[in-house]
Amino acid sequence: MKTLFEEASILSYGKDGFTIIENGYLGIENDLIIYLSENKPEVSYDVNKNMSGKLLSPSLINGHGHSPMTLLRGVGGGLTLERWLKEAIWPIEDKLDAQSVRVGARLAIMEMIAAGTTCFSDMYCLNEGTIEEICTAKVKSNQTRPILSNDSEESLAENKAYREFKSLYDSFDGYDDGRILIDFSIHAEYTITEKMTREYARLCNESNGHMHIHLSETSKEHQGCRKKYGKTPTEWFSATGVFDSSCQAAHCVVVEDGDIDILAEKGVSVVHNPTSNLILGSGFAPIPALLERGVNITLGTDGAASNNNLNMFEEMHIASIIHKGYHSNPAMMNPKTLMEMVTVNAAKMMRRSDIGTLEVGKKADIIAVELDRPHLIPNLDLLSLMVYSMQASDVVMTMVDGEIVYENGNFYTIDAEKVRFDVKNALGKLY
Amino acid sequence: MKTLFEEASILSYGKDGFTIIENGYLGIENDLIIYLSENKPEVSYDVNKNMSGKLLSPSLINGHGHSPMTLLRGVGGGLTLERWLKEAIWPIEDKLDAQSVRVGARLAIMEMIAAGTTCFSDMYCLNEGTIEEICTAKVKSNQTRPILSNDSEESLAENKAYREFKSLYDSFDGYDDGRILIDFSIHAEYTITEKMTREYARLCNESNGHMHIHLSETSKEHQGCRKKYGKTPTEWFSATGVFDSSCQAAHCVVVEDGDIDILAEKGVSVVHNPTSNLILGSGFAPIPALLERGVNITLGTDGAASNNNLNMFEEMHIASIIHKGYHSNPAMMNPKTLMEMVTVNAAKMMRRSDIGTLEVGKKADIIAVELDRPHLIPNLDLLSLMVYSMQASDVVMTMVDGEIVYENGNFYTIDAEKVRFDVKNALGKLY
Repeated sequence: MKTLFEEASILSYGKDGFTIIENGYLGIENDLIIYLSENKPEVSYDVNKNMSGKLLSPSLINGHGHSPMTLLRGVGGGLTLERWLKEAIWPIEDKLDAQSVRVGARLAIMEMIAAGTTCFSDMYCLNEGTIEEICTAKVKSNQTRPILSNDSEESLAENKAYREFKSLYDSFDGYDDGRILIDFSIHAEYTITEKMTREYARLCNESNGHMHIHLSETSKEHQGCRKKYGKTPTEWFSATGVFDSSCQAAHCVVVEDGDIDILAEKGVSVVHNPTSNLILGSGFAPIPALLERGVNITLGTDGAASNNNLNMFEEMHIASIIHKGYHSNPAMMNPKTLMEMVTVNAAKMMRRSDIGTLEVGKKADIIAVELDRPHLIPNLDLLSLMVYSMQASDVVMTMVDGEIVYENGNFYTIDAEKVRFDVKNALGKLY
Repeated sequence: MKTLFEEASILSYGKDGFTIIENGYLGIENDLIIYLSENKPEVSYDVNKNMSGKLLSPSLINGHGHSPMTLLRGVGGGLTLERWLKEAIWPIEDKLDAQSVRVGARLAIMEMIAAGTTCFSDMYCLNEGTIEEICTAKVKSNQTRPILSNDSEESLAENKAYREFKSLYDSFDGYDDGRILIDFSIHAEYTITEKMTREYARLCNESNGHMHIHLSETSKEHQGCRKKYGKTPTEWFSATGVFDSSCQAAHCVVVEDGDIDILAEKGVSVVHNPTSNLILGSGFAPIPALLERGVNITLGTDGAASNNNLNMFEEMHIASIIHKGYHSNPAMMNPKTLMEMVTVNAAKMMRRSDIGTLEVGKKADIIAVELDRPHLIPNLDLLSLMVYSMQASDVVMTMVDGEIVYENGNFYTIDAEKVRFDVKNALGKLY
């Protein structure tokens, strides 16, 4: 099956990074991009789709989230991270079962597909249902079950969360033609023992695994670690061997200069979650400084409970403007840098070298954006429009592996009516 | 003509501020709200519209902008305010004529209507065309032509901008049944002389006029005024009599503690433009401190050139989260406070006591928002959804004075095709 998109604006990628091709042609065969040019190909295609007035872009990648938490959207508004977790979130999470986790994940996937996101890095428990939902919806995800422990004597093998992780890893890493990758994960320094961290980090390294952690999200966490270990969380994770594997660290709001050096040296990718960090009052991650030292930066929504949506266009927009304002420097965090964070940088972090850009040979994970909307006129600088003016609702088509999963409000891989029904039932048990 | 909206969620307003009525009924006769209750009225209506699954809210008010600048959307990205004005904006503005101003304003109105905004406070020149466009589109606006002068000898009567303002004021204040109000306006302290300011302020006061100014938008402006006059811009405007009238001050990014006292004491309304202030690297206005002293706060988009859209849902969202992050306090800037800024507070500032809330006797300026969207599920706290999760594109109907001007993507008072054509022609002359 060969499809040709004709006369589109195309966000292409080459050795100078992102550039726009006007009136371009993009050819797809099965799941792959096979043609990209300003000129019409000479060979014929099975389906020709005119895309005049639309932009084709790589679909977006959400670098950090907790997809089932859509069911907790808006819960505990106005609380700090610590009180929000203890008083609002954890009491409800205690009531989540496999079915409600699955339903929450499906709702999240539906929201992300409509907003142009087709791949997400996700940290939660009871993942089997989530994985089934991902495969049914035909999107992609790095899934992980984070380990936690507060018993200094407990060994890895005795730990319930580890056993759940191990079962996931053995069953699903690379599952469904690479749609699912299983990452190693430690929730955070303050929810695990040093002994277990060392053991788990060694295992990750030996397995050539990828590690996903929360790092220095709040000042309380950061200072607590200093007090307990005489080290920053970054120093502590580095000393325990966690950064010896491929690793992504979410938040990094209060990392210090020395921490940034460690992250750069160890090649740790940082997931910036601007909305979540602001809404919980955690603060402004030093993204410009991290960029300056060459750290690979990506963006994430975090869970819907602290966002309160899963909209990567919004994250790009907010990430761009807050740092300009915070550092009194409108020249930093330019649109190209932001687009890289939600595409190539995220693909690199998640070890998915076949997505993130529109190039011949890459997977056809593509969104079409309608440009004929009042807020996108005039089109004087398309990258600037994408980051500052565009809305997730401007996405009119979402494609994964060459298959359209969403078009003009219609979901082809998710039964929207069933989502409503299942969500209603799940909520009845939670609230 | 009487219309009844049935079974809607309704954002109503009473002595405890905003509250949600579930499964409510809202009745309209001609341009007025005549009924609002949880119970179905006993009298019959000409038209009954089922609004199940939708939220009815007062339409939003944009407190500060420069509508024709949609034609400069995205121009000069990455420059500070001063360089942005001098190098990017002013050279293009020099080429704007009456026709391009009119077309830019029409595009802005179209964008705002689709995003649920029906009333806006606007500062620009060549307003006659803008006013015609507002009346044709059937929205509402406080228009003003700001005065500027760099000649210390020049009198008010000799000033070209003043003569243009005077002509507007005489012709259009209260025009079209109050749809148009003409406000007095001084662009900023750094673009006018003290002599002219005093003369104009006295005139505003004697005419019971309302004044619209830019105030302490940047540190450079603020410190420049201190150096020139030994006063902050707030102290200077206060001393020249500008605050003796009803007044709205846009930005107030670098106002000091003493300035806040003056603004509170004089009853000056402040228009917070968070996106514009961040994107230009100007900084974070001290909104929480202003709120604490009882200053009336509203929100604005500023011009599309420094935003880069006209989306009041986005301004609410950004205004709420940035201050929580900046002050490490998730409890401040709650959803109710934000909703007040874009409705009741703005109506009060613009001296429009007949809009801003859904109450019997008020004008029927109403939006309907579709709640059956993935990012708005579950609906656990509707005010929180409105500020953190909702998108401008969730607006499915916009009504002004009881007349529907927009519904499901269709504009009833603007010819969208002609906008595209006219914008294309206008751009040809500018770029």
